[in-house]
Amino acid sequence: MPLLVMKFGGTSVADLDRIRHAAQKVRAEVARGYDVIVIVSAMAGKTNELVGWVGETSPLYDAREYDAVVSSGENVTAGLMALTLQEMDVPARSWQGWQVPIQTTSAHGAARFVDIPRANIDAKFAEGFKVAVIAGFQGVSPEGRITTLGRGGSDTTAVAFAAAFGAERCDIYTDVDGIYTTDPRITSKARKLDKISFEEMLELASLGAKVLQTRSVELAMRYKVRLRVLSSFDDTDESSGTLVCDEEEIMESKVVSGLAFSREEAKLTLVTVEDRPGIAAAIFGPLAEAGVNVDMIVQNISEKDYRGHEKPVTDMTFSCPVDQVARAQKALEEARATDSIKYEKLEVDTDAAKVSVVGIGMRSHAGVAARMFRALAEEGINIKVIATSEIKISVLIDRKYMELAVQSLHDAFELEKAG
Amino acid sequence: MPLLVMKFGGTSVADLDRIRHAAQKVRAEVARGYDVIVIVSAMAGKTNELVGWVGETSPLYDAREYDAVVSSGENVTAGLMALTLQEMDVPARSWQGWQVPIQTTSAHGAARFVDIPRANIDAKFAEGFKVAVIAGFQGVSPEGRITTLGRGGSDTTAVAFAAAFGAERCDIYTDVDGIYTTDPRITSKARKLDKISFEEMLELASLGAKVLQTRSVELAMRYKVRLRVLSSFDDTDESSGTLVCDEEEIMESKVVSGLAFSREEAKLTLVTVEDRPGIAAAIFGPLAEAGVNVDMIVQNISEKDYRGHEKPVTDMTFSCPVDQVARAQKALEEARATDSIKYEKLEVDTDAAKVSVVGIGMRSHAGVAARMFRALAEEGINIKVIATSEIKISVLIDRKYMELAVQSLHDAFELEKAG
Repeated sequence: MPLLVMKFGGTSVADLDRIRHAAQKVRAEVARGYDVIVIVSAMAGKTNELVGWVGETSPLYDAREYDAVVSSGENVTAGLMALTLQEMDVPARSWQGWQVPIQTTSAHGAARFVDIPRANIDAKFAEGFKVAVIAGFQGVSPEGRITTLGRGGSDTTAVAFAAAFGAERCDIYTDVDGIYTTDPRITSKARKLDKISFEEMLELASLGAKVLQTRSVELAMRYKVRLRVLSSFDDTDESSGTLVCDEEEIMESKVVSGLAFSREEAKLTLVTVEDRPGIAAAIFGPLAEAGVNVDMIVQNISEKDYRGHEKPVTDMTFSCPVDQVARAQKALEEARATDSIKYEKLEVDTDAAKVSVVGIGMRSHAGVAARMFRALAEEGINIKVIATSEIKISVLIDRKYMELAVQSLHDAFELEKAG
Repeated sequence: MPLLVMKFGGTSVADLDRIRHAAQKVRAEVARGYDVIVIVSAMAGKTNELVGWVGETSPLYDAREYDAVVSSGENVTAGLMALTLQEMDVPARSWQGWQVPIQTTSAHGAARFVDIPRANIDAKFAEGFKVAVIAGFQGVSPEGRITTLGRGGSDTTAVAFAAAFGAERCDIYTDVDGIYTTDPRITSKARKLDKISFEEMLELASLGAKVLQTRSVELAMRYKVRLRVLSSFDDTDESSGTLVCDEEEIMESKVVSGLAFSREEAKLTLVTVEDRPGIAAAIFGPLAEAGVNVDMIVQNISEKDYRGHEKPVTDMTFSCPVDQVARAQKALEEARATDSIKYEKLEVDTDAAKVSVVGIGMRSHAGVAARMFRALAEEGINIKVIATSEIKISVLIDRKYMELAVQSLHDAFELEKAG
């Protein structure tokens, strides 16, 4: 029997009525001849309520107990979904993590999958059950304690089950109808993509397109699980939503697939740092320890630049989220106080935003960067920092130009046109 | 290390503040040198919310899924209680039913204990943990599904753990400060008992004193678990509350320990039933099948009473709760329609109440019934039905006299006086 995995997020199971809607979509797939594994999140708001109780009880909580409490939201939804399906004459059974058992590491709050044995669920399918409803976001440690996977873990659960059971596809039902070339709130020309490659999706997800959790896309890419993102609020059929898949499945891919952006970026520059081997480690080690997510890094060319010093000096620029600037400043000042680094001053610019163009076609097409810089120049937008990878080009610009930049780039790369 | 079991009901863990109060009581026992097993209910109202969702989803629900959903309330409290204790520097760990594992039958919604293996929890105590917090009301079936024990199941869980771990005592914290000679709302002379025997408590519990679930008292009696009922809302010490224990531990017991009552009783009389072997079974079989809880049964003496019939006839009187009268009437009429019983008419009196005196001292003291009847006669209260057991005498009277009867009997047996 062909098998599908279907995952419903918090807003898709927010109340009994939404659960019924979701169950109808499951029943439709069963009617098409599939066995179905359904992964459910907690009803919207429930996990936050539980997290709030834990935080209020114990600010420095024991992660084992946090997991025991917080995982209960998904258990409730799983049981209610199984009951709803049974009411529709679809033979269904719910499974909590330990019942499968979903074996994970002991890293409570951020556990990783070790194994998902198929035997128990396969036995139920063999008995005539058509649907296994799994509480997402959780598992069980080697010590027999409940673990959770961290936020967004239900997407990851869905992909892991799709890999373990060789599912034909993994459908992620959410409150948006697919992946867009960019955020439609910024340009009405944004177009829903029919297909996107894993690599592109990863760049878009980590850059701010919050539809799919990054880790679930990584896992899908590794196990070649075809992921589909679609809306539980719409009528849907086999061609709905966006398919995230291997690039070989995408026949004619455009040079640029989408535009990502991040509004609250800061640019920090250490002016006149000694230019010696190991200086980057001396700077970014303390920042990492302080929990600063450094993104772009640029080091100026410094050969023969002494600026009156005895040894060569340079400037070091990096970006991070605005709300981490205070932590970054503190870490750098402490490093300077212990003489592990020396610099003249720290310049901080908190008025930045990041815009990125993403596309696997870039690998074989030159000129994307030039086209991007020209489009920005025509609008008079100054570029503060540039960073590139194999399939993306990111620039840091003044925050006030962010929308304008996205709109111009969307036009410049003709993203409103399909294929 | 001596061990205590402490159980906190729904109102005693209704919110984070109440959980903190409860945890302080646990910490005090740890400070006195005990290892403690804490049994918790769901936060007040949570189980009803979950039951409501299940009922709305599926009126004829699958009991396996009902149990999976409804048990989650206790899991949340268990984790929060463990965290609260850890915050107070008391090493604590939470346990869901399957983690112990609490092995039960597969009778979902009304499961019974099969075994509570000690190994896992003993190992934690050996590691230095002082408290094991157990989610009450739940267990796991031989098939690996979550079971629940039915309402009041957390009391039963507490007693079962006390038996399995040889606890010195099982303290049931609730919202009343002990067991009273009768309901203080009916007479201000009602006195809190320091001790009461299992047998007396069983009679009082099943007759309407709703403090302890009957099944938990039965289990305590069988395994000789000393049960203490006390309030989580008061300051408490070793002598607080009421101890429910073996009668041998009660040195000087009064003839009568307490008065129970039940306000909404009905008396039904089948007039002129044929008096033949098997007639009681023919009457009460259909009533039991219809779910009528028949309580008192009285059959009039009928020898040589023919009332013009060819064979001897009799009258059969019984009592049941008022809200079951319609069901009882229907069952009896259907039995008459199939000729399995014959009677002239059914007289129904829905204005009755039941009052009972309970005491193990009755076994060795004659005259209790006479004293009871005299006290009622002095107030002009007519007795409709009398039923007796080894340690209790119950009478059915007009409902309007119920309070008066309780007050007079409380005085007649001098229950306001201790020992």
